[in-house]
Amino acid sequence: MDKIKVSLLGSTGIVGQKMIKILENHPYIDLVKVSASAPKAGKEYEKSVSWVEPGSIPEKYKNLKLVSTDPQDHKDVDYVLSALPPEAAEEIELKLVKNGINVISNASPYRMDKNIPLIDPELNYDHLNILEDRNTKFVKNPNCTSSIMAMPLKTILSSDVKSISLVSMQAVSGAGYNGLSYMAIDDNIIPYIHGEEEKIPAEISKMLGMANNNEIKSRPINMSVTSVRVPVKVGHMGVMNVEFNKKIDLDELKNDMRNFKPLSKFNDLYNAPENPLIVHEEEDRPQNKMDTVNGMEVHTGRFSYKDNTLRFVILGNNLVRGAAGITVLTLETMKQMKLI
Amino acid sequence: MDKIKVSLLGSTGIVGQKMIKILENHPYIDLVKVSASAPKAGKEYEKSVSWVEPGSIPEKYKNLKLVSTDPQDHKDVDYVLSALPPEAAEEIELKLVKNGINVISNASPYRMDKNIPLIDPELNYDHLNILEDRNTKFVKNPNCTSSIMAMPLKTILSSDVKSISLVSMQAVSGAGYNGLSYMAIDDNIIPYIHGEEEKIPAEISKMLGMANNNEIKSRPINMSVTSVRVPVKVGHMGVMNVEFNKKIDLDELKNDMRNFKPLSKFNDLYNAPENPLIVHEEEDRPQNKMDTVNGMEVHTGRFSYKDNTLRFVILGNNLVRGAAGITVLTLETMKQMKLI
Amino acid sequence: MDKIKVSLLGSTGIVGQKMIKILENHPYIDLVKVSASAPKAGKEYEKSVSWVEPGSIPEKYKNLKLVSTDPQDHKDVDYVLSALPPEAAEEIELKLVKNGINVISNASPYRMDKNIPLIDPELNYDHLNILEDRNTKFVKNPNCTSSIMAMPLKTILSSDVKSISLVSMQAVSGAGYNGLSYMAIDDNIIPYIHGEEEKIPAEISKMLGMANNNEIKSRPINMSVTSVRVPVKVGHMGVMNVEFNKKIDLDELKNDMRNFKPLSKFNDLYNAPENPLIVHEEEDRPQNKMDTVNGMEVHTGRFSYKDNTLRFVILGNNLVRGAAGITVLTLETMKQMKLI
Amino acid sequence: MDKIKVSLLGSTGIVGQKMIKILENHPYIDLVKVSASAPKAGKEYEKSVSWVEPGSIPEKYKNLKLVSTDPQDHKDVDYVLSALPPEAAEEIELKLVKNGINVISNASPYRMDKNIPLIDPELNYDHLNILEDRNTKFVKNPNCTSSIMAMPLKTILSSDVKSISLVSMQAVSGAGYNGLSYMAIDDNIIPYIHGEEEKIPAEISKMLGMANNNEIKSRPINMSVTSVRVPVKVGHMGVMNVEFNKKIDLDELKNDMRNFKPLSKFNDLYNAPENPLIVHEEEDRPQNKMDTVNGMEVHTGRFSYKDNTLRFVILGNNLVRGAAGITVLTLETMKQMKLI
Repeated sequence: MDKIKVSLLGSTGIVGQKMIKILENHPYIDLVKVSASAPKAGKEYEKSVSWVEPGSIPEKYKNLKLVSTDPQDHKDVDYVLSALPPEAAEEIELKLVKNGINVISNASPYRMDKNIPLIDPELNYDHLNILEDRNTKFVKNPNCTSSIMAMPLKTILSSDVKSISLVSMQAVSGAGYNGLSYMAIDDNIIPYIHGEEEKIPAEISKMLGMANNNEIKSRPINMSVTSVRVPVKVGHMGVMNVEFNKKIDLDELKNDMRNFKPLSKFNDLYNAPENPLIVHEEEDRPQNKMDTVNGMEVHTGRFSYKDNTLRFVILGNNLVRGAAGITVLTLETMKQMKLI
Repeated sequence: MDKIKVSLLGSTGIVGQKMIKILENHPYIDLVKVSASAPKAGKEYEKSVSWVEPGSIPEKYKNLKLVSTDPQDHKDVDYVLSALPPEAAEEIELKLVKNGINVISNASPYRMDKNIPLIDPELNYDHLNILEDRNTKFVKNPNCTSSIMAMPLKTILSSDVKSISLVSMQAVSGAGYNGLSYMAIDDNIIPYIHGEEEKIPAEISKMLGMANNNEIKSRPINMSVTSVRVPVKVGHMGVMNVEFNKKIDLDELKNDMRNFKPLSKFNDLYNAPENPLIVHEEEDRPQNKMDTVNGMEVHTGRFSYKDNTLRFVILGNNLVRGAAGITVLTLETMKQMKLI
Repeated sequence: MDKIKVSLLGSTGIVGQKMIKILENHPYIDLVKVSASAPKAGKEYEKSVSWVEPGSIPEKYKNLKLVSTDPQDHKDVDYVLSALPPEAAEEIELKLVKNGINVISNASPYRMDKNIPLIDPELNYDHLNILEDRNTKFVKNPNCTSSIMAMPLKTILSSDVKSISLVSMQAVSGAGYNGLSYMAIDDNIIPYIHGEEEKIPAEISKMLGMANNNEIKSRPINMSVTSVRVPVKVGHMGVMNVEFNKKIDLDELKNDMRNFKPLSKFNDLYNAPENPLIVHEEEDRPQNKMDTVNGMEVHTGRFSYKDNTLRFVILGNNLVRGAAGITVLTLETMKQMKLI
Repeated sequence: MDKIKVSLLGSTGIVGQKMIKILENHPYIDLVKVSASAPKAGKEYEKSVSWVEPGSIPEKYKNLKLVSTDPQDHKDVDYVLSALPPEAAEEIELKLVKNGINVISNASPYRMDKNIPLIDPELNYDHLNILEDRNTKFVKNPNCTSSIMAMPLKTILSSDVKSISLVSMQAVSGAGYNGLSYMAIDDNIIPYIHGEEEKIPAEISKMLGMANNNEIKSRPINMSVTSVRVPVKVGHMGVMNVEFNKKIDLDELKNDMRNFKPLSKFNDLYNAPENPLIVHEEEDRPQNKMDTVNGMEVHTGRFSYKDNTLRFVILGNNLVRGAAGITVLTLETMKQMKLI
């Protein structure tokens, strides 16, 4: 079988580096080009990156020359994966797509466009079907918080939900490597993240919506979010309160979560965890320190239920489940769905 | 005027040290004795304390000999202030009171006893009136989180509240100086604090209740709490969602909060802040780094209101408003109420 | 007595803010103007600063309009104090001086100019005498590490020193508020600080040199420095090894350090600590947490002496003794020396 | 080939857990028993450990019952590996050895006993030869700082060294999981670690000494050490100044370090890194964040040489190279030396 050839936009950033680690030994995706914007293009990868992933830069990418973000530099790959910052992404990605180049992107522009699927594979891989007849595929992945917090919601929304209230405590890496200075956030909590509280409910509503007639129709969800920045490096944690319209059975709900394995019908999804939702019974889990290691799993715990209201805690790795990991898993899933 | 003579139990702990700093230059309270349990009693204060407050131990307390916690060592003071850990407090405080010694205590035992006032002065100084005819006064102060999170509630509960949901993100100092190891909590969030989620609603209900017939009757409040430990040193922050039974006016509410100054009728309350409730309009406040300095104020911000639901953020200094500061303010208030 | 009128360059930065706090209640220095570069000039101070000092912006400066850095905006003050970053300082300060305006500056350009005194007042206030006949005074303060590490050296160099080896562990605030991202330095040590290892010995040699004929002649010191960045917010700590050419008496040396009070002959030095050098005997001091509070003192400890080699630890507050504090103390000292 | 059966003392501590991870998939060492002291013995491993290694407890050890530390519980293993704390180790290990049980231990007691080899394999595996004729083998591994800082010294001491001065900046995990509270060390440096400054030169002298007549004779080294505790979790960094008696060639020295591969003659040393000494040329390396991942390598950088004095920086993982890793590597090496 031929490997899928991909290039990577935004390859020197914190999400780009994570993607490189994920692709390093991939059995059927071959990262052949790394790309960066103007001042870096042309240089060796090793010389233009501030490598921050644990360990060294994989040998095989060290000396790759960075190509530009222009379409002509990506004509010969099957897919472009994008870890660009939002400002840069808007124009660059559209230009690629207009030139007939397939793009799967983590960046925020166009996420809410009803013609473009917004994919967190376990939740809504079926939305990818709207791409079937398109010559050029353009796929988006959700925001790092949305992609984690949405994971248990498919199970929950199978009951009759009145409202959801989420407090998300988000790691510093979510703002990018240079997003927050040490003096600003060490020993501090900043109870505000620009744009986040609007994005999360909108993206989740779209992901949990319906695909038909080549469009995605969002599912209305009555959800309010408060996002705060906390001094941890990796792992977005949420406290979720869900009010139901009628009584639910908590044990049944937890079982349904444990059995939530919608991708199990596909083979060879290299980045799909066996259990996308882990349900902890220990009173002090999940914790960032222990539960962000296998970065594609979403961990839940501290379930309590009273007066039709469920309270639980969610935690996921914002760089893997929240970004690099689902981009790659999206590509893997598209291959198994014969969309590639 | 004669000064009020006090002794201090638990004087070597993190809250005890804060109390020493607060009392160091007090105009009418005179700290004359510091106390500690068995192995330390008899030694000089300086030699038995691991001083952690910024700056050095106040000169005048350095060489005080630590007295025991037994009643005979506290016969000659007007009041005993207690910063004891809960295990030790239960027996020691009761013994003092049974021996006719007045006690104001931060420790948890007896907080929910209906005969003992649980005082956060701005909220419920009037509860102190049940002590009027008692020869020996025994007063409790609330838990560090309760004392902060309760502050805006008097204003809020003047409207018709359906339910309150609180997520409290609590600083490490709340667990005591040695409560959490660096390896356990640095770069980590632990979404569980033993006993906290039950204590907070119960204590707040009592503080906001009614005093009559020598008892305190709690006010039923439909409140649920999720408490998580975050890696900051000082400052408990809460995200509060309040659902009202009917529409409220947000601007009016904020004004009422700004005008919440119930102690203004008393003079000489040395530790009463001019504005116990600060209302921030900046989008990124309150923050631990900036808003825990004048430790008796409670800071609020990020107000939003939609569909009869109010969301806002609360922050207070857990060692001052949450502990040492209100013990001293309670004593000051009792003096102005002529209960001393 | 008329107050000395000053303006402040770089007033919105981390050192500028510290200076504002120091000057807020100064008895005879009156901060009348705050200044910032182009995009901020014209705005209110409050609106253009990201205030990071604990507590709020002093009321009296909140609404001051920021003036430009051009000479015409500083004609009517007695002295300009500068907390500018080095890039900006070079041109701006020279222009002010050429226009006859007196400047005391913390910024690095011109520090090694032999015609310009480089002042850490306790060490070398006498160097200020070379300004006596100059119409316009231009004074520099040393680098934040030099100003701290130099403090014990006058005492030490009164013995016959062969060589000095210093390892400096420097706080993140030394790089400015946005100097290092959280992701870069949290849980990490970076064993390199650009330019630092050359600057420190050079500046110390100049400060400990001789003033004559209107020039400063550096004192040759055989000193090597290794500078590392550590994840603490405030406080530069050094481990110093001093090899002597002959035997010294350690107790005598420590006594001499304790008695090092060269400014005691002047009155009214508001920012001169009574004891500029603190000598700790406890085995685990100095520590950043406890010993950077009164920021003008330099703390020493862990003295050991063997085979003609002395080892000790030094710690100082890099924002106060290392920057803002000595600029103000320099001005105070100049006044007492009748140079103003 | 039969596997070597081992049991593990101190299996629930931070070093014990690291050892479990290292042994989990070992090709020829089979961890068959985990052990703990009295209150835990008899319980399941999973139930008595606070697991702190990233990821979960390996499945195969989860339900092992903890055995006691008594000899009868270790009769049927080939080797006992010990990660005991020093207080416990002294008596327990001696009792095992007296009962004819082979022990390789990380704990400090008996490290300086001249009859017991103190092994950091690359440095002094030849010392193991003194065990050849002994029926019961008792081997010690050095302190976590000694084992790292000693690694470059064999190369350096092949030139004529006058004196060595080391400042070691040590991670919090070196004090054990509960060794330091968050309040004590976060945002702080403590310039003192009990016993460390004496241990390091003594242990290094022994490791670099000579084995003959069944004894180890230390090599005298003129070395002084200052140890400070810094707020990082893993990685001990040292700044080393070495004064030589005559000129050396720096490039040659670095080459010799790069070629320091004394174990390359053995096969199948599963935990021996290909390059035990990494020499970095980048100006800002080594850093804890990047260079403690493959935990058996010792990283060096920032070499400078002037006036016969060499300065460089050393960094190693204190839990792997400093503890668990070398215990296992010692056993592997003994097997290849046919001492097992």
